[in-house]
Amino acid sequence: MLGHIIIDDVRPRTPDGYPPKVVDGERIRVSADLIKDGHDELGAVVRLRRGPQLIASAPLHEVVNDLWEGELEVSGLGAHELEIVAWTDRFATWRHHIEVKAAAGQDVLVELEVGARFLEELVGDVSPAGQARVRDAIETMRNETCSLDVRLNAALDDAVVELIAPVVPDWDRTSRTVPLWIDRPLGGFSAWYELFPRSEGGFAGAVKRLDAIADMGFDIVYLPPIHPIGRSFRKGPNNTLDAGPDDPGSPWAIGGAEGGHLAIHPELGDHGDFVRLVDETRARGMEIALDYALQCSPDHPWVHAHPEWFTQLPDGSIRYAENPPKKYQDIYPINFWPERETDRIALWHACKEILDHWIAAGVRVFRVDNPHTKPLAFWEWVIGEVRASHPDVLFLAEAFTRPKMMAKLAEVGFTQSYSYFTWRYSDAEFREYLTELSTTDVVDYMRPNFWPNTPDILEGVLRNGPPAAFAMRLVLAATMTPNYGMYSGYELFENQPAADHNTEYLNSEKYQIVERDWSRTDTLVPLITQINAIRRRHPAFQQLRTIRFHGSDNGAILAYSKTTPEGGDPVLVVVNLDFDNPQAATLDLDLGELGMPWGDPYTVHDEISGETYTWQGNRPWVRLDPARYPAHVLALRA
Amino acid sequence: MLGHIIIDDVRPRTPDGYPPKVVDGERIRVSADLIKDGHDELGAVVRLRRGPQLIASAPLHEVVNDLWEGELEVSGLGAHELEIVAWTDRFATWRHHIEVKAAAGQDVLVELEVGARFLEELVGDVSPAGQARVRDAIETMRNETCSLDVRLNAALDDAVVELIAPVVPDWDRTSRTVPLWIDRPLGGFSAWYELFPRSEGGFAGAVKRLDAIADMGFDIVYLPPIHPIGRSFRKGPNNTLDAGPDDPGSPWAIGGAEGGHLAIHPELGDHGDFVRLVDETRARGMEIALDYALQCSPDHPWVHAHPEWFTQLPDGSIRYAENPPKKYQDIYPINFWPERETDRIALWHACKEILDHWIAAGVRVFRVDNPHTKPLAFWEWVIGEVRASHPDVLFLAEAFTRPKMMAKLAEVGFTQSYSYFTWRYSDAEFREYLTELSTTDVVDYMRPNFWPNTPDILEGVLRNGPPAAFAMRLVLAATMTPNYGMYSGYELFENQPAADHNTEYLNSEKYQIVERDWSRTDTLVPLITQINAIRRRHPAFQQLRTIRFHGSDNGAILAYSKTTPEGGDPVLVVVNLDFDNPQAATLDLDLGELGMPWGDPYTVHDEISGETYTWQGNRPWVRLDPARYPAHVLALRA
Repeated sequence: MLGHIIIDDVRPRTPDGYPPKVVDGERIRVSADLIKDGHDELGAVVRLRRGPQLIASAPLHEVVNDLWEGELEVSGLGAHELEIVAWTDRFATWRHHIEVKAAAGQDVLVELEVGARFLEELVGDVSPAGQARVRDAIETMRNETCSLDVRLNAALDDAVVELIAPVVPDWDRTSRTVPLWIDRPLGGFSAWYELFPRSEGGFAGAVKRLDAIADMGFDIVYLPPIHPIGRSFRKGPNNTLDAGPDDPGSPWAIGGAEGGHLAIHPELGDHGDFVRLVDETRARGMEIALDYALQCSPDHPWVHAHPEWFTQLPDGSIRYAENPPKKYQDIYPINFWPERETDRIALWHACKEILDHWIAAGVRVFRVDNPHTKPLAFWEWVIGEVRASHPDVLFLAEAFTRPKMMAKLAEVGFTQSYSYFTWRYSDAEFREYLTELSTTDVVDYMRPNFWPNTPDILEGVLRNGPPAAFAMRLVLAATMTPNYGMYSGYELFENQPAADHNTEYLNSEKYQIVERDWSRTDTLVPLITQINAIRRRHPAFQQLRTIRFHGSDNGAILAYSKTTPEGGDPVLVVVNLDFDNPQAATLDLDLGELGMPWGDPYTVHDEISGETYTWQGNRPWVRLDPARYPAHVLALRA
Repeated sequence: MLGHIIIDDVRPRTPDGYPPKVVDGERIRVSADLIKDGHDELGAVVRLRRGPQLIASAPLHEVVNDLWEGELEVSGLGAHELEIVAWTDRFATWRHHIEVKAAAGQDVLVELEVGARFLEELVGDVSPAGQARVRDAIETMRNETCSLDVRLNAALDDAVVELIAPVVPDWDRTSRTVPLWIDRPLGGFSAWYELFPRSEGGFAGAVKRLDAIADMGFDIVYLPPIHPIGRSFRKGPNNTLDAGPDDPGSPWAIGGAEGGHLAIHPELGDHGDFVRLVDETRARGMEIALDYALQCSPDHPWVHAHPEWFTQLPDGSIRYAENPPKKYQDIYPINFWPERETDRIALWHACKEILDHWIAAGVRVFRVDNPHTKPLAFWEWVIGEVRASHPDVLFLAEAFTRPKMMAKLAEVGFTQSYSYFTWRYSDAEFREYLTELSTTDVVDYMRPNFWPNTPDILEGVLRNGPPAAFAMRLVLAATMTPNYGMYSGYELFENQPAADHNTEYLNSEKYQIVERDWSRTDTLVPLITQINAIRRRHPAFQQLRTIRFHGSDNGAILAYSKTTPEGGDPVLVVVNLDFDNPQAATLDLDLGELGMPWGDPYTVHDEISGETYTWQGNRPWVRLDPARYPAHVLALRA
C-alpha cells in the first residue's frame, strides 16, 4: 500500500535502479517529488546512510509544485543509500491555519485550544530549561481574561516555536531509499596518460619516464596489456600477417608459453619490477592503470586447459575474433556463456581472479578493453564482486559503440567511459554532445572521459595536423569534462595516419616498438603542464553538470563556462576551432550563469597567457591567434 | 542476474510501474531498448497476455540504435500484461556472416559446415513436406564436387530460409513483462453532459431530457450527487449562509435524516425511478455517471454512527471543511486515516460499499469529487478492488490541483482527468499545454477531459461572453482531446458570473433550482450536434498522441491536426480565437505529417460548413468570420 506521502522521482538516479555515482567530498543536489493529498505542511530530509549508519543529513525544501530539493555533502566510499524521509508537520500546519484565520478575522478560539493541547502533548520532550516558557504559553492561550491578541501572540511566539519544532513527531512519516555509489575523488576527476612500457625498455624504463609524466600533471599512467604475447598468427608491423621472429606482436594478443593474464611479458620485467613501477608511480602522486582485455591469443594457457571457454568450430579449430569481413586471427574471443553452468561459473571466477591478482599487486585502476563485446551480466557481477571488498577500484570502459550500450555499461558499474569526443569537431557538435552528456539522465551515472587520441584512433584534424590542432584538441578534451586522457606521442605531435580507410597510426605502436626523442623541446609539454595545473587549481573543472555554452558571433570561436557549487571562481573557456587562422568574435555571455554583474566591470584572468582583463557587460570581444594560444582559459571574478 | 539480452525502457509505461492505459480495439505502439553485447542478430516480439492466456502478438523491429518497435492491436478488458520477448537469432547471424564473408572473398568452408550442422539440428522440426528440401540443401552445402557458388546458393536459398526460420529456437531468450490496463472504448473517447436532475423535476423529468441529449450526440449523462442533503448549515442561494426552509441546499452536502451515500434524495424519486433513468439512458446509447463525493453533511448518518471517521475538535464538535480562510460549514471532510487501523479498514470498506451499491444499480461511470484531498493510497485500493470484479467501471478525477498530483491520481488508476483547459486561452498556451499532454510520459496513463464550463467554473471569455465565444470554446474542447464535457446551460449561452473574485455562476444551480427554456431555438444545440457527429465520424478525433500544431501567421488563428494509425482521413482544425472579429491567416502546414502531397492538389472538406475546397501546397489562406463559423473542421484527402 502507498504511504501517506508519495515520494517519487528521487534524483540522482539511474533508469533501472542501479546506484548513481558521486565522489567522496562532493556536494550533491538531491531532489524528489513529495505528493500528499490535502493542504498540510510537509517536512523532509535526505539522509546519507551506509546500512544502519547515518553519515549525513540535510533538509529538503519545496522549490515548486511538489518538487523538493536539498544539498548534501557526501563522504565515504562504496555502496551507500540515500534515504528521503518526509512527514506531515502538524505543528506548522496548525500555525499556518491559525495565522490565516486570524488574519481573516475568523474565530480562532477552538484553534487556540487545538494548539494548547498540541503543546501540552509535547512539552515533556522540550529541554527542562524551556518547559516553563511553553507552559506559560499554554496558560496564556487558554486564559479567557486575556485579549485574543495576547492569546494569539502566545500561540505564535517565536521562542515557543523554536522550542517545540525540534520535538514535533514525524507524523505520517514515509521514507524511500535509493542506492548511491561513492567513488574516491579520482573516479570523478582524472587525467590519464597512456604509454607502452616496451617502447621505454620495460618497467624499469617506464619508471624513468614517471617524473616527466608527473611534472605534466597526470594522475593515471595507463599501460596496454603487460602479459606474454602469442606467437600464432602474430601481427607484424602495420597489422601485417607475416610477423618476423623479432616482431613483438600486439599486446592485446594475450597469452603465450610464458603464461596468460596473470603473467608478465618477460621482456618488460618480472613481478618485482612491476610492483616497483606501481610503487614509484604512487610515490609521485599517480597510479598505474592496467588493461583488462578478456581475450586470448591461440597460445594462451586457457585455450588448452579450457577449450569449453571458447567457441569450437566443426573443423576442430576455435573461432577467432572477427567482425565480418574484419578478421583478428591472433585473438580468440571468450565465450562467456558456455553450455554448462558450472563451466560458466568457473570461467567468470577465472576472469575475476585476474583482477584480484593485480589488485594484490597494488593496482586500483583498470581500463577495460571492448566491454561491449562481453555480457552486461558479467560486468554487473565482476565489478560488484571486486568492489564489495575494494570500493576504491576504478573501471574505465572502452566501449566505442552505440549510445545505449555505453550508458548501460556505465549504469551497471563502470566508473568512467570513453566517449565520442574523438569524432566531434564543430561548434554545433560540441554544443549538442556536451548538452546531452551534462543535462540528460546519464549525467547521474556516466562519466565521459575525453581522449583526443588513442593507439587505435588518430582522427580528424590530427591526421597530418599541425601542432596548433593538437593544442586545440588538448584544451577541449581537458576542459570540457573532468576526465580526459592522451596516448603518448601526442605531446610530440605524432600525426601520420596508416591509411585513408582506417584511423590507425602509421607504424602503430600496437605492432612495433616506437622510439621517441623525449629530449625534444618543440613539444606540447608546456601547454599540457599548464592545462593540468589549471584543472587542479580551479574546482569548476571538476564539474560536468555545470557546463554551459555561451553565444558567439563566429562559429570558429566556441565559448563555454563551468561553475562550482563548492565555491571557487567560475571559469570561461574560449577556444579557436580554426587552428590555421586567427579568429575573433563578439561573445554573448550569460552573466547570470557566470555570477558576474550586468553593469559593473569584472576581471577575467587568462590562466594560460597570465594576462588579466577587465570586462564590462555581456558582449566582450575576443581574438585568438593559434600561432600564440589555442584558447583563453579564463577565471572570472566580480 | 541480468539476462543475455537487456530489455530496457519498455513503453507504454508509467513512472512507478502502474499499468499504462489503452482501450479495447486500439492499435498501440510498443517499444523497448534491446541491448546485447557483440554483433549477433536479435529477434523480438511483444505479446499481450492475460496471465497465462496469450491474446495477441506482434514482431518488434529495430528502428535505430537498439530501439525496437512494433504495433499491436489490443483486445480485452481489465488487467493485462505486455511481455517483450527477445532472443538471439543465430540462424540470421550465421546467414549474415557467411554473406559478408563471401562478398569479401573470404574462405567460407567452415561457415558452410557450421550452417549444415545448424540445419541438421533443426530439419526434424520442419514440416514433413519441407524436410527433403532442407536435406538437399545440407547435402549440397557439403558436396565438395560442387562449386563454392553452388554450395553457397544452397546455404542462402530463400526457400530453405523460409522453412527453417519458424523452427529456429529462441536462443538466449529473455523476457520482460509490464502491466497494461485495457478500458472499454468509452474510457478513451467520450462526450459528457452534466445536469442537475432536480432542475428537471427529478429522475422522471431527467428521462424526458434524454432524447435531446442523445440527439446532441453525448455519451455520458453525469449527475451531481443524488443523495439526501443536510439541513445543518445548509447553504442558501448564491452560497449564502442563511438558507430558507425551501432552499434545496448543495447536493455536495451529502446526507440527512433520509440517509447517506446509499440513499436517494426523496424529491428526485426512488430507487426504481433511478434504475429507470439508468436503463432509459442506456437504451439511448448513453450511460449515467454518478458523483462520488466522499464527504458528509453534519446530518449524515455516519457522523453519529462513526465519529471516529471524522476529525474531533476540543470543543466536541467535528472539524468542517475549510481551506483557510475559506469555510465550508455544511460539509465534514472524512479522516481517511483514523487512529485505529480497524477503523480505517471499516471506513475504506464503507466507502467502497457506496460504489458497489450504485454499480449494482447499473452505474458504470463515476465522476470523483476532489480526489486530491483524499489519500492516493485509498484511490489505489478502492479503484483496484472495484475494477478487479468490474473492469468496465470508469472513474473521472476532478482534481483541479498541482500537475504532479493530477498525474499521480491518473497513474494509480483514474480513467480520465479534468484538466487545465478551462484556464488556457491563447495560441501559445494551447501549443504548450497540448504538447505537454500529448508528448510527455503522461500520455501513456493520463487522459485529459476538457470542460469549457462546470457548475463551479465560468471562466475567461465565457464570463458575460457572446454566443460566438461559447462556440469557439466548444470546438476547442471537443476537438483537442478525445474526452470532453459540458455542464447544461452551456448550450443556452449562460454567461452571468456571480462575482469578480470567484468563478461561480450567478444564481448557481449548486444552491437553487434553475429553470431553463428548452424550447429556445437560438442555442448552441445545432453546433454541438454537428461537432459530436464529426467526432464520431472521424477516428482521428479519438487520438491524443497525434495532435500536431501547424504554423499560422496570425496569432488569432490556431491550426492543429490529428491523424490515426487505424486509417481514416487526417483532420485539420482551424479555430478563430477572436470571437468578436473575422480573422484571416496564411497557414504553414506540415504536409508530411498530414500525409498530403507537396505538389499535387488535395481536397479539404469542411465538416461544419459542408463546403469542399481544393488546396495545393502547404500555405493555404483561411478566413473565419465568427458570425458564421467558429472554425474549419477539415477532413483531408489526397
